[in-house]
Amino acid sequence: MANIFSNIPSELPNEIFEDIILTDKLRVERIISNGHTSPDNGWYDQSENEWVMVLSGYGVIEYVNGDKFTLKQGDYLHIKANEKHRVIETAANETTVWLAIFY
Amino acid sequence: MANIFSNIPSELPNEIFEDIILTDKLRVERIISNGHTSPDNGWYDQSENEWVMVLSGYGVIEYVNGDKFTLKQGDYLHIKANEKHRVIETAANETTVWLAIFY
Repeated sequence: MANIFSNIPSELPNEIFEDIILTDKLRVERIISNGHTSPDNGWYDQSENEWVMVLSGYGVIEYVNGDKFTLKQGDYLHIKANEKHRVIETAANETTVWLAIFY
Repeated sequence: MANIFSNIPSELPNEIFEDIILTDKLRVERIISNGHTSPDNGWYDQSENEWVMVLSGYGVIEYVNGDKFTLKQGDYLHIKANEKHRVIETAANETTVWLAIFY
């Protein structure tokens, strides 16, 4: 047994991406942010479908068409393969924990 | 966007199992319990691997060898295919929300 909120470093110079499940068909990641956003140079453009939920903190996801969604605890989004998106804001004063399923 | 804690009925005569993602390789379910346990007649014995996390409330999972794990918020377990298990207790005075990934 493990806990999704455990082993979070007190200092987070970079976002952390950790595999929880990894097979050739499926990747489940814990992502930990603290004020981080997507790299300035662009958009996530993935060949897999993604389902992403915020477990603590908050994050703002923007699609290339300008739609923005602020995800707080329990909020989730289905992001289709090759649907370009980026994270434009995450909580600065608390840790944002995401669960992401890529399939 | 949706929220994993939304649309929970106030009365729960039976556990609720809802598909969030369903493909031929992957099933992600929200499970809602309120004092429910596995059927008396036996054990879950699945051909898929399962990863299960408690998001609210708590649940106690027992393996056939007698090992028991009490899962509270954020706790998760990897249950291998055909690893027999059952839920022997869930919170009676609050709703237990589980996220389960079958793959």
